[in-house]
Amino acid sequence: MNGKEVIENHKKYNLQSWSVQGSLDPKAIEKTDNIYLWDYDGNRYTDMSAQLVNMNLGHGNKEIGEAIKKQVDQFCFIAPSYAAESRSKLAKKVIQLMPDNMGKVFFTNAGADANENAIKIARMYTGRNKVMSRYRSYHGSSFGAGNLTGEPRRFPLEPGIPGFIKFFDPYVYREKIHFDSEEEAGTYYVEKLREQILYEGADRIAAIVMETITGSNGVIIPPKNYLPGVRKLCDEYGIVMICDEVMAGFGRTGKMFAFENFDVKPDIVTFAKGITCGYVQLGGVAVSSEIAAYFDDHLLSCGLTYSGHPLACAAGNACVDYYETHHILDHVNEVGAVLGEILEQLKKKYQIVGDVRYIGLFSAIELVKDRKTREPLVPYGRDPEGKMGKIIKMLEERGFMTYSHENMILIAPPLIITEQQLREEMEKMDEVLKIADETMR
Amino acid sequence: MNGKEVIENHKKYNLQSWSVQGSLDPKAIEKTDNIYLWDYDGNRYTDMSAQLVNMNLGHGNKEIGEAIKKQVDQFCFIAPSYAAESRSKLAKKVIQLMPDNMGKVFFTNAGADANENAIKIARMYTGRNKVMSRYRSYHGSSFGAGNLTGEPRRFPLEPGIPGFIKFFDPYVYREKIHFDSEEEAGTYYVEKLREQILYEGADRIAAIVMETITGSNGVIIPPKNYLPGVRKLCDEYGIVMICDEVMAGFGRTGKMFAFENFDVKPDIVTFAKGITCGYVQLGGVAVSSEIAAYFDDHLLSCGLTYSGHPLACAAGNACVDYYETHHILDHVNEVGAVLGEILEQLKKKYQIVGDVRYIGLFSAIELVKDRKTREPLVPYGRDPEGKMGKIIKMLEERGFMTYSHENMILIAPPLIITEQQLREEMEKMDEVLKIADETMR
Ligand SMILES: Cc1ncc(COP(=O)(O)O)c(C=O)c1O
Ligand SMILES: Cc1ncc(COP(=O)(O)O)c(C=O)c1O
Repeated sequence: MNGKEVIENHKKYNLQSWSVQGSLDPKAIEKTDNIYLWDYDGNRYTDMSAQLVNMNLGHGNKEIGEAIKKQVDQFCFIAPSYAAESRSKLAKKVIQLMPDNMGKVFFTNAGADANENAIKIARMYTGRNKVMSRYRSYHGSSFGAGNLTGEPRRFPLEPGIPGFIKFFDPYVYREKIHFDSEEEAGTYYVEKLREQILYEGADRIAAIVMETITGSNGVIIPPKNYLPGVRKLCDEYGIVMICDEVMAGFGRTGKMFAFENFDVKPDIVTFAKGITCGYVQLGGVAVSSEIAAYFDDHLLSCGLTYSGHPLACAAGNACVDYYETHHILDHVNEVGAVLGEILEQLKKKYQIVGDVRYIGLFSAIELVKDRKTREPLVPYGRDPEGKMGKIIKMLEERGFMTYSHENMILIAPPLIITEQQLREEMEKMDEVLKIADETMR
Repeated sequence: MNGKEVIENHKKYNLQSWSVQGSLDPKAIEKTDNIYLWDYDGNRYTDMSAQLVNMNLGHGNKEIGEAIKKQVDQFCFIAPSYAAESRSKLAKKVIQLMPDNMGKVFFTNAGADANENAIKIARMYTGRNKVMSRYRSYHGSSFGAGNLTGEPRRFPLEPGIPGFIKFFDPYVYREKIHFDSEEEAGTYYVEKLREQILYEGADRIAAIVMETITGSNGVIIPPKNYLPGVRKLCDEYGIVMICDEVMAGFGRTGKMFAFENFDVKPDIVTFAKGITCGYVQLGGVAVSSEIAAYFDDHLLSCGLTYSGHPLACAAGNACVDYYETHHILDHVNEVGAVLGEILEQLKKKYQIVGDVRYIGLFSAIELVKDRKTREPLVPYGRDPEGKMGKIIKMLEERGFMTYSHENMILIAPPLIITEQQLREEMEKMDEVLKIADETMR
């Protein structure tokens, strides 16, 4: 097929995620390498969102490709009830990467089903029913994960599942209360959560589920003492603490897992994306040794045909090895520091930039009409003048590919991006923000 | 790793689907080919369930393997918002395999998320909320698919999602009512369903979800006129008819899709397993042109990171081509006829065999204590003396690998099995049933 046919068939036969199908204008991709994509006309684009923040090691990684091919030669698939080398190896590796309280992994196909199974496990283990999660979160689009989700992508799943309860996240930038310090803010949100736990009935709550760092809703980084505070609440009330590391895990923040930035040990960690960088689909649920031991003599009532898919696990082993042998974390911290500097400069330069938030190579620019009132550039849930679309389009015209969410632009390139590549791309962002600053406020 | 290490790590670090982890004794598989598996000690086993009834084309298929490798060389992944050749091609192929009312495909990772998205689509399209599905069905283990499921694997998901309603399936063998003909039975179940629809409020029901032929709950084949009857009810009340072809689709019954055996056109078809035979994980939701058109100007509020994964789609293209170029359907019908004969003979020979049900290479043997009363060999949901486990173990000792469900043994080998291979394996079944017949009733 040529590029035109690829696009025609895409529009004619394929339903595209989160879209009004009649207005689609997709690009057909012919090849990819490193941080770049090319269409069938030879135009090059830079992947500044690592696709959906999953291609942490970028495109065309040879080690991962070879590992997949080698696994094809052994076998692609064997059912979860058999032991397979790639699966056994990866389970061990994942647990060894995790804090010392972690015991076993249940593998899934992606992020949503990792969260689905995490809740099931927490409910079985505690014998409790309620599950708390946060507004401004995304945990997936299936019924369980979608009911955890705290934004409009949940709405088609309503009326919701009984016992799924939402609380507010520490979004300090938009908080009405004035805090004198980060610590004060952290304490406030933890105490608010305690209050809500008490009113929901502490002994009825199986789990608290959080994105360690909120991703697609705008890279919202909690105060330093927030997660340790939640950890203490969970200990106090016997609640399972679940960190969703689907987007933030596997090096994105400069640590292997984002919770390491806050010195806490969750009881359950869900992951996907970076474990294989999407070369083959894989997700999973890591559980503490204590939870794992419960299932030594209780039925684990979780299952899926492709749990621990051997081909996916082979890709996972290659990825995990690559993070380590190529010192990806050190690289993220170095290049991430440059990204932080550039973002701070953009904030200084342009009034339209209300806030910049960054950690490692995980960042967002929040756009405002007015820096003082912090009024968002577009109202929540709407963009009547299509401003955000125009900004993304201007970036795209310069070959800078990423996406926006509400009034925020995400910047989360593959973790292998060099300082020079990053500076080149952020020049384009500077250009576009200048235009937006002059014309859109 | 050697076989011992593979097993040790599996037990130490991996949580296995649907199991009490302390009692696991898995085999480690070193290589696979055709319908056979080998452990690390060189013992050969015959795969008489096509793993989880997904490896329709058996193990080590070279065409599929090569297609995967070739796709690795182009790229493994590109996000769902880009057009990719393997995805575009497969979307077109799937629609071309389907009845002429079908329009577009939304791809997922597996069977559960196919069903999750099918329900979401039906709700959005109809603006209605309730979803009806059947007892004795399995549709997946995530919250949405699991709430459709009509057996104990649903229980950890309760309290359930509001609006998910169950009705009884046409399990004629265990029906208390006497029917004079298959047609009479079919009519009875359709009229019972109509009654339930009326009492639930016909205009509140978005969808009726059925396994076209119930799979893991015992290969329950509906009377010929049943699905056409349900089709008429759906037309009458504006209800979306969803056929779950995850297990029965892609040649298993001797037709490409099981609903072709009954001459009906569903509005939505969910599929997984056989589309790639599990070489890479893939599932999907095919929707009618009418439903597809609705989303031309309405937001399709469905999405997942790996929708239409290019590597998975490459495997899918190779599979679909293989079914066609190797005339797999003809082969299934030929060898399936032999399977049917053998099963009927077993039923004649052994009183323990209450019922045999078969279509294509999809079959189950239902075991009873007493052929006349039809009392199951083991009570529902329990097996106090471990009888079914012993039968599966005896088969396994002879190298015949399959699994049981309640009082039923599943036989669903890869569709490439030859008549001779089938006869060899069914000899083992004969031996084991003889022992069971003599010692277990
Ligand atoms: C934090 C988080 N959790 C879960 C998911 C869902 O993952 P998937 O799309 O693989 O189901 C995502 C996807 O973006 C995510 O960002
Ligand atoms: C009919 C049917 N639907 C759905 C599923 C769920 O598929 P998966 O395990 O890929 O989620 C299965 C799995 O066995 C099935 O047999």
